[in-house]
Amino acid sequence: MRTTVGIIGAGPAGLLLARLLHNAGIDSVVLESRDRSYVERRQRAGILEQGTADVLRAAGAGERMDREGLRHDGIELRFDRRRHRVDFPALTGGRSVTVYAQTEVCKDLIALQLRQGGPLLFGAEALAVEDAGTDAPRVRFRHEGREDVLECSYVVGCDGFRGVARKAIPAGLSRVFERTYPFGWLGILADVPPSHDELVYARHDRGFALLSMRPPVTRRHPSEEVAALPVESFVSRLYLQVPDGTDAGAWADEEIWDELERRVETADDWRLERGPVIQKSVTPMRSYVHEPMRHGRLFLAGDAAHIVPPTGAKGLNLAVGDVVTFARALTHQQETGSAELLDAYSATCLRRVWQAERFSYDMTTLLHRAPGATPFEDRLQLARLERIATSRAAGTDLAEAYTGFPFG
Amino acid sequence: MRTTVGIIGAGPAGLLLARLLHNAGIDSVVLESRDRSYVERRQRAGILEQGTADVLRAAGAGERMDREGLRHDGIELRFDRRRHRVDFPALTGGRSVTVYAQTEVCKDLIALQLRQGGPLLFGAEALAVEDAGTDAPRVRFRHEGREDVLECSYVVGCDGFRGVARKAIPAGLSRVFERTYPFGWLGILADVPPSHDELVYARHDRGFALLSMRPPVTRRHPSEEVAALPVESFVSRLYLQVPDGTDAGAWADEEIWDELERRVETADDWRLERGPVIQKSVTPMRSYVHEPMRHGRLFLAGDAAHIVPPTGAKGLNLAVGDVVTFARALTHQQETGSAELLDAYSATCLRRVWQAERFSYDMTTLLHRAPGATPFEDRLQLARLERIATSRAAGTDLAEAYTGFPFG
Repeated sequence: MRTTVGIIGAGPAGLLLARLLHNAGIDSVVLESRDRSYVERRQRAGILEQGTADVLRAAGAGERMDREGLRHDGIELRFDRRRHRVDFPALTGGRSVTVYAQTEVCKDLIALQLRQGGPLLFGAEALAVEDAGTDAPRVRFRHEGREDVLECSYVVGCDGFRGVARKAIPAGLSRVFERTYPFGWLGILADVPPSHDELVYARHDRGFALLSMRPPVTRRHPSEEVAALPVESFVSRLYLQVPDGTDAGAWADEEIWDELERRVETADDWRLERGPVIQKSVTPMRSYVHEPMRHGRLFLAGDAAHIVPPTGAKGLNLAVGDVVTFARALTHQQETGSAELLDAYSATCLRRVWQAERFSYDMTTLLHRAPGATPFEDRLQLARLERIATSRAAGTDLAEAYTGFPFG
Repeated sequence: MRTTVGIIGAGPAGLLLARLLHNAGIDSVVLESRDRSYVERRQRAGILEQGTADVLRAAGAGERMDREGLRHDGIELRFDRRRHRVDFPALTGGRSVTVYAQTEVCKDLIALQLRQGGPLLFGAEALAVEDAGTDAPRVRFRHEGREDVLECSYVVGCDGFRGVARKAIPAGLSRVFERTYPFGWLGILADVPPSHDELVYARHDRGFALLSMRPPVTRRHPSEEVAALPVESFVSRLYLQVPDGTDAGAWADEEIWDELERRVETADDWRLERGPVIQKSVTPMRSYVHEPMRHGRLFLAGDAAHIVPPTGAKGLNLAVGDVVTFARALTHQQETGSAELLDAYSATCLRRVWQAERFSYDMTTLLHRAPGATPFEDRLQLARLERIATSRAAGTDLAEAYTGFPFG
């Protein structure tokens, strides 16, 4: 098999890249180790930055997002039983975010790709990227029980943190930046409408809590038409900071609700609505960056190159930034013959990546309580939250970061 | 002896408070354990926030400051051999700071107090504050070899971190918030004009460095008239981050200059001018807050209640905020009979204190390299500096904090 761009991984990065390239008249092949139904059920992030939503629209993949996604004009911070709303459009000159689950983005992109696009192979497990340092890189993969080779002009590794692409960059050329956290998130999906119409980020002496939301899980197929979904038809997605290594099964549903209630408590008469818990899982947290994000004709995008803790809702949005940068750079190369933008790919992406890493780290340390945190550190957190609540500059700094750093 | 307000300590907090009370027609006595020449030689901070300079002017103590102090409209951040100027007036709607040494503030206030004000006793060592919980607190002190008692309506402890005032607050009512840092500042005073006309804060893999300035040290008596001092007549005050416990004598002068040169290096042709080193010392760094700042009729102000690392230049300015708050509150009580503002003293001051603690901590961790810092943490620092350099909101957040949080 032969193509211009071999894409490893059919997560949002790989699928969107295939779309952007198709629209630019560049052919690609996507290899995905899992089957379609697995990819379409994989639960991940659900906050699309303004720029991410714009890219999906421009790529022709924004129709259902615009119909079913929820535009959010702010988030609420809770601390000391107080509520402070960060008003995105007022602070950023009109920017906002869209709540639309990553799974739904993937469904939309898969449907588009299968209808009009290059090959998208499910159950095609990439085994190795070879000759990345040459003009003719290759992806060895296994599909339907047989080994095969995809001959490419470029390979883009969108295969996540545990993928094979990154391994093709010689260790001697690589630098890894990493931080782990002594806590994770216990997340539940609950069949009850969200108790607040925007996301609630709570700092509490007992730890962080997050109130979020998802479209209802018992969904019809994407091809079925639905009217715009009001927030009441969404279900609740809620998270609790728990010690690293916690077993989700160790928490009874009622214990989770009790703990959530304590951590998001307010001084007014706001109430958390309870409902049946549909899903329960624990997510570990990690910061990770691999530099460089390119080696010869191999480019890394999304989780293959960097991981952020979920507190800043940046993972998906970073992946989108990477593939937009790659698509632009390759288009430029095809139109002008100049590899200038391709050569700048790693540096261009990393500027944005490090801002997102910084923001994700700051949001995490602002809101989570580290085991053994000192009283001084507790007060620092409260002073930071107070600053955000009282300074337009500090609020704007947060709102700009949350709604998204510019691409490239 | 008897007075309305017994003030322990003739640093800037105690001296300014005596002045503010005198101007409000409230009598006070200041007890200072050291002699006058010691107090007038004690080298400390030298950056006055906009609000601090305004208070000194309004108190009638701003004449020489306005003549000899230097208005600074910004600071320079250096990182990665780059230079970024934070433009205070542009970011804060016209605010700036004044470079005028704390020693000079003290000289001016002492001269004023001795000319027209209540008693200011040098060599008067406070031994204890008694009956703080009653309406008639007393300060026991030793003066000219004899023990004496100052009977007061209110006592204000402006006697610094190691003073006796704080000890009069029962431990059971106190909460202490503290953080130490594994580094300090090796500071030199050098007889050479500053190499840059604003303060330079440098982040380097080898550690932090600061270029600052002072009026010339071979000064005439404050009563002598001088024309406004141009920056060229100032001397250099320079600092290097060193490990905690470093002996200043272990560094030869040329080693200090070499190290400064490395850490403040730029990509352009800027040069650090060297000169004779006049003074050399190491300052440890600490964050500390005592809550509450009031017990009955005893009020703590300045370093007696809180310490900040010097990176944010907040120590003196916090002390000024405290005594302004106290003077206002007591004036209000005398005019209206209501103790409302006095009762709110601790909470009012602590709001500002914690913002300054937060800012001082952030400036410190932004610019210093902790021993054993990980590559991830190094990159975070650079991303933070990059953010300040490219986001107006982040720059404004810093500029607002540096030029000063509002009093009360």
